[in-house]
Amino acid sequence: MYVEGSRPDLRVPFAEVELAGDNPPVRLYDTSGPGSDPEVGLPPLRAPWIAGRGDVAPVSGPGTPLAGVRPTQFAYARAGIVTAEMEFVAIREGVEPEVVREEIAAGRAVLPANVNHPEIEPMIIGARFLVKVNANIGTSAVTSSIAEEVDKLTWATRWGADTVMDLSTGKRIHETREAIVRNSAVPIGTVPIYQALEKVDGDPVKLTWEIFRDTVIEQAEQGVDYMTVHAGVLLPYVPLAVDRVTGIVSRGGSIMAAWCLAHHTENFLYTNFAELCEILARYDVTFSLGDGLRPGSIADANDAAQFAELRTLGELTHVAWEHGVQVMIEGPGHVPMHKIKENVDLQQELCSGAPFYTLGPLTTDIAPAYDHITSAIGAAMIGMFGTAMLCYVTPKEHLGLPDRDDVKAGVIAYKIAAHAADLAKGHPGAQAWDDALSKARFEFRWEDQFNLALDPDTARAYHDATLPAAPAKTAHFCSMCGPKFCSMKITQELKDYAAQGMKDKSDEFLSSGSKVYLPVLP
Amino acid sequence: MYVEGSRPDLRVPFAEVELAGDNPPVRLYDTSGPGSDPEVGLPPLRAPWIAGRGDVAPVSGPGTPLAGVRPTQFAYARAGIVTAEMEFVAIREGVEPEVVREEIAAGRAVLPANVNHPEIEPMIIGARFLVKVNANIGTSAVTSSIAEEVDKLTWATRWGADTVMDLSTGKRIHETREAIVRNSAVPIGTVPIYQALEKVDGDPVKLTWEIFRDTVIEQAEQGVDYMTVHAGVLLPYVPLAVDRVTGIVSRGGSIMAAWCLAHHTENFLYTNFAELCEILARYDVTFSLGDGLRPGSIADANDAAQFAELRTLGELTHVAWEHGVQVMIEGPGHVPMHKIKENVDLQQELCSGAPFYTLGPLTTDIAPAYDHITSAIGAAMIGMFGTAMLCYVTPKEHLGLPDRDDVKAGVIAYKIAAHAADLAKGHPGAQAWDDALSKARFEFRWEDQFNLALDPDTARAYHDATLPAAPAKTAHFCSMCGPKFCSMKITQELKDYAAQGMKDKSDEFLSSGSKVYLPVLP
Repeated sequence: MYVEGSRPDLRVPFAEVELAGDNPPVRLYDTSGPGSDPEVGLPPLRAPWIAGRGDVAPVSGPGTPLAGVRPTQFAYARAGIVTAEMEFVAIREGVEPEVVREEIAAGRAVLPANVNHPEIEPMIIGARFLVKVNANIGTSAVTSSIAEEVDKLTWATRWGADTVMDLSTGKRIHETREAIVRNSAVPIGTVPIYQALEKVDGDPVKLTWEIFRDTVIEQAEQGVDYMTVHAGVLLPYVPLAVDRVTGIVSRGGSIMAAWCLAHHTENFLYTNFAELCEILARYDVTFSLGDGLRPGSIADANDAAQFAELRTLGELTHVAWEHGVQVMIEGPGHVPMHKIKENVDLQQELCSGAPFYTLGPLTTDIAPAYDHITSAIGAAMIGMFGTAMLCYVTPKEHLGLPDRDDVKAGVIAYKIAAHAADLAKGHPGAQAWDDALSKARFEFRWEDQFNLALDPDTARAYHDATLPAAPAKTAHFCSMCGPKFCSMKITQELKDYAAQGMKDKSDEFLSSGSKVYLPVLP
Repeated sequence: MYVEGSRPDLRVPFAEVELAGDNPPVRLYDTSGPGSDPEVGLPPLRAPWIAGRGDVAPVSGPGTPLAGVRPTQFAYARAGIVTAEMEFVAIREGVEPEVVREEIAAGRAVLPANVNHPEIEPMIIGARFLVKVNANIGTSAVTSSIAEEVDKLTWATRWGADTVMDLSTGKRIHETREAIVRNSAVPIGTVPIYQALEKVDGDPVKLTWEIFRDTVIEQAEQGVDYMTVHAGVLLPYVPLAVDRVTGIVSRGGSIMAAWCLAHHTENFLYTNFAELCEILARYDVTFSLGDGLRPGSIADANDAAQFAELRTLGELTHVAWEHGVQVMIEGPGHVPMHKIKENVDLQQELCSGAPFYTLGPLTTDIAPAYDHITSAIGAAMIGMFGTAMLCYVTPKEHLGLPDRDDVKAGVIAYKIAAHAADLAKGHPGAQAWDDALSKARFEFRWEDQFNLALDPDTARAYHDATLPAAPAKTAHFCSMCGPKFCSMKITQELKDYAAQGMKDKSDEFLSSGSKVYLPVLP
């Protein structure tokens, strides 16, 4: 279902779960989009909003930003303007549009929405809003096809991915990205250095600012909504990572480190950062300032290399803001639980409240094949402490490329982490979902319980595995205890019993100091 | 491999992982036991230790505790005696035997070891030691067979379960338990009220102290190492649970609540607690004081009913200690992240430091079919805060009975949580495992990485899924980036480069105030 905003073309999607009896329906945030035909792409929902602002010249296909204009949500917010995109996310999040505008204007939230990606249903990333989840997809030199990646995109958003990063390497990067952007109702992120590296045959030493810049423009014109840029990997920081257990594990970070060392020159992303800002501003591409020196193991967490880079990202945040560009900051990685909070606190301090976007973190290194779990632990905690978006990790992390099942496993684990964080932060309305499901569980409304589940298909299948018969779906017991031995059934009976005045007796007892039963103990 | 203690029959098992090159082998805690033939059972490792203490009369089969004697590890520890069992766990944990004795004597740790379960390899549960994991198995009225449950036991300990609870209901409870105890190298826990209830045809109202007592004696004679007893579900507390979203979700709790209300009489487990202590003391059965009023939903966490019961469990802890009985305390359940720490702090305070043993907790209710993950998040955190043992939750929780795959999924998720907690607590030696695996990963020693993984089979299978060829196992790249584009490979190259003096330049730069590159930014 849709909730209409102040104009008829502003319709915000929700998934509404109907429940049995007189239980009110539950309305859930919905990332799945209107559904696309890959041959055609999605309808350009935002096209009239963008055109209406008059800062993009209409051409066939995507519009061209007018020269000298910064049509960014950040610039509008600072100018006091509530855009249609801001109103859209306000309805989605259940807050006033002015709250959205304020958070964006303060740099505490980003609304990634390239003027050339009119297909998206706007969403917001910021600590005051629901914690978001990103899913990574993309072809590699070794495997995968374009159709497969578009399918992964649709699959990821069906299960709740709020943004998707296309990390394609190898051949046909441009075509893959075009297919993904045109079919995506969620913001798309990329790491442009990957494509730039392909242009120089995979040799980092041959990279130049010009090749990178042209790649960024190419991707911005296609409609990429946010880009990871490793501008904080500075030449003097590189040696700080050399004695680590796992050195530099970020691909972008290692590419830039290799370039810096080979040329004995400062990172060209850093030295050309102002020009880069101007390019991103023209399309409203959001910066995702990459953590090229993030720790890749428990041993390397919170070390000098990591925090040196974070300090630089804090400086660059202000430069980006001065150019009207939205910014979020990427974070680790591998971090043991007791070192997680320091990451958020320091990032918020050094980066003046810009949204934090973290990969996990994994809380132990010992479980390859289960890193969706090792990292969901860290992700939930870092979300509770204030991280705005969590980049998923799939079971294949460190081992291979995620297939469809891995994408789903990663998204579900991270939706759990994000929702657990929303609950812990006391996000208004977050607990209503839990309460509705728990009430259905307690009342043996099995179908309601399944339909409210993050993954109704699997919940239903697991129930069927033990008690396949249809009557079991309405039974007031389950397979754990069997028909004559159910705690929930007993409690229901207690409720009737208790209604007969037990409450009074209890109050009397408790007010007398609860001592009456102690003497029986020796 | 085994490490021998002060006597030749005291041999402590470890799994030793051999690594390539000159990397030292890694020694891991091993719960898998010596392997048993289900027809015969395990050899009685502890038999000579128990007999040597002279407080158990030898009979064919298990020994009979001598009248009036309390042959408990707690009593020995208080008397200043380091038993063979204590020495065994000291070697397992890498601490001095005196540390083990002190922690047991103070009540801060338990060493569950029924004198009639000589087959176990002793282990310890306490906040100062490695965080432990329990796996629940057991037949139900609806499904499962004895052979299947023994297989689940072996399977659970193979993946790292430190104790196993037999929660059988329905028919053949005694025979099932006998098979499980005789084949278990880990302590076995039960909830005797389940079997007592079977004896009265499933009607809680017909339960009596005498039926319960005889059931406890029957199970103690078989060798059950710890028993859950819901002695804290007091009559006046029951109404406190009536207005909850999910009432009473503990089976034992709801049985006792039903009994209390039906008879208008205080819980017979509470009124006969001293006699129960004397029975448990004779066999050295450890109390696991059950949380019959634990919250079954986020909405009910940390409420009056839960904490009223916890206060009573604190009183009962001291009664048990006075009788020489070891005690641990069970905890929730469903708890949002921000309310987890309060649970541990209050339990430690009210129960004078007795070990905490928690079920999860689940940090959200919305993900049936993934509750091993919702709860691994809570388990890791509560472990970090001081919980000594984590009771696993499988993907089938709330939906059906766990099969073999579910048991493994639950154990692995909880080994991750427990190890993450060990790391966060700074347990000596915990990080060595992570470091060894991360070093292997960084050096592309794929086989070492697999062999060090919690689940080598699945890690290997996932790697094969993308790069099946044997040469890929020795390749200095993986499927994520392909051969010419690997961050770890680049870092290795950086190491050589950096050795040529980059470190000096960096130090010089950093000591100059790191300002040299800032002017290039506008």
